[in-house]
Amino acid sequence: MQMARVIGDVVASRKDSLLTAVPLLLIQPIGADGQSVGHALVAVDSVGAGAGETVFFVRGKEASFPFHPVDVPTDAGIVGIVDHWHVAAV
Amino acid sequence: MQMARVIGDVVASRKDSLLTAVPLLLIQPIGADGQSVGHALVAVDSVGAGAGETVFFVRGKEASFPFHPVDVPTDAGIVGIVDHWHVAAV
Amino acid sequence: MQMARVIGDVVASRKDSLLTAVPLLLIQPIGADGQSVGHALVAVDSVGAGAGETVFFVRGKEASFPFHPVDVPTDAGIVGIVDHWHVAAV
Amino acid sequence: MQMARVIGDVVASRKDSLLTAVPLLLIQPIGADGQSVGHALVAVDSVGAGAGETVFFVRGKEASFPFHPVDVPTDAGIVGIVDHWHVAAV
Amino acid sequence: MQMARVIGDVVASRKDSLLTAVPLLLIQPIGADGQSVGHALVAVDSVGAGAGETVFFVRGKEASFPFHPVDVPTDAGIVGIVDHWHVAAV
Repeated sequence: MQMARVIGDVVASRKDSLLTAVPLLLIQPIGADGQSVGHALVAVDSVGAGAGETVFFVRGKEASFPFHPVDVPTDAGIVGIVDHWHVAAV
Repeated sequence: MQMARVIGDVVASRKDSLLTAVPLLLIQPIGADGQSVGHALVAVDSVGAGAGETVFFVRGKEASFPFHPVDVPTDAGIVGIVDHWHVAAV
Repeated sequence: MQMARVIGDVVASRKDSLLTAVPLLLIQPIGADGQSVGHALVAVDSVGAGAGETVFFVRGKEASFPFHPVDVPTDAGIVGIVDHWHVAAV
Repeated sequence: MQMARVIGDVVASRKDSLLTAVPLLLIQPIGADGQSVGHALVAVDSVGAGAGETVFFVRGKEASFPFHPVDVPTDAGIVGIVDHWHVAAV
Repeated sequence: MQMARVIGDVVASRKDSLLTAVPLLLIQPIGADGQSVGHALVAVDSVGAGAGETVFFVRGKEASFPFHPVDVPTDAGIVGIVDHWHVAAV
């Protein structure tokens, strides 16, 4: 999984029917220092995240697990909202 | 998932039989600023996207979900057409 | 999926038994402009592709779908031979 | 799989219920020379790793195997703690 | 799949129980020219490869296929030892 910041959302009226009513958020992956890493992704959300929040998301088929038994066709899903993270002095 | 622009299509008369009659579009992934990110991919389409449209697509086995129960051998599939996207000022 | 050029093959007498008699081709992924993208891969072939041909291939477990019900341990498989591709002026 | 160093942890009170009580560690992938490779990831831990330890982790759905039969929605999981590694003079 | 050179091994006394007795080799992916590509990985081995040998490996869940019906938690597995490879003059 990777940390990301929710930076916006995507509106799509024509989409796969299994994606109906599933929130599509625009997220920017970040590193342990909070800086952007790579490009923005479109992720489904099952935890109620909002713009500006720091989350962590999962890639691949696992992104559809929270919607089981519906096989939502997604490869990125927000699975948690980060309260804070800690980098140890090692 | 990632946003992309449909930039063309691929014609292949000799291909896996499960890909018969499945549209093969050439897509260019884009970032939140609309600029190209990485290289073009060949994606199957189940939502009727056309050249010039902005879409979002899914990678991996999930790309074959819309064709269930047929196990289409693909790893990239367009699952929605983007009306517009919004980047929050956060 | 991604387009690639078949650039050679790999000979391996000691390999997983499920790969016996499966052609192992060396492919170089290419972009929409026909130029090389990234490094060469070893792909299984179920469509009879040959050196010099332009193909498209699938990554991941989907690469083993054409060999169903045999679970061929591969993550890259050629699933079509490209006749031509078209980039729209959009 | 890839080697990594455990550099911290992530605290998330709002998350997918299947992640409850699952340790979420922050890991930095490393190469054969022990130097950092790429960006930090959030991984689940089933072997009791702690900050400063060198581990190896698995990506993808396989990361949830140790939690079977629970389908933990993760794509990165620590599956071993490295005692030492050896690079041959070849 | 990708070609790689076996460059060493990893010793881990504390690891997922399904990895017990599974050889963990350190491999360096290589390109069609035999040069290193990217960083070293930890791969399971089911074909008896040794340090210095050129192999090809599979990424993802497919890496656990040779160990079926055991769901070994791995995402990289050596599935063949390369005798030689051939790059065509195309």
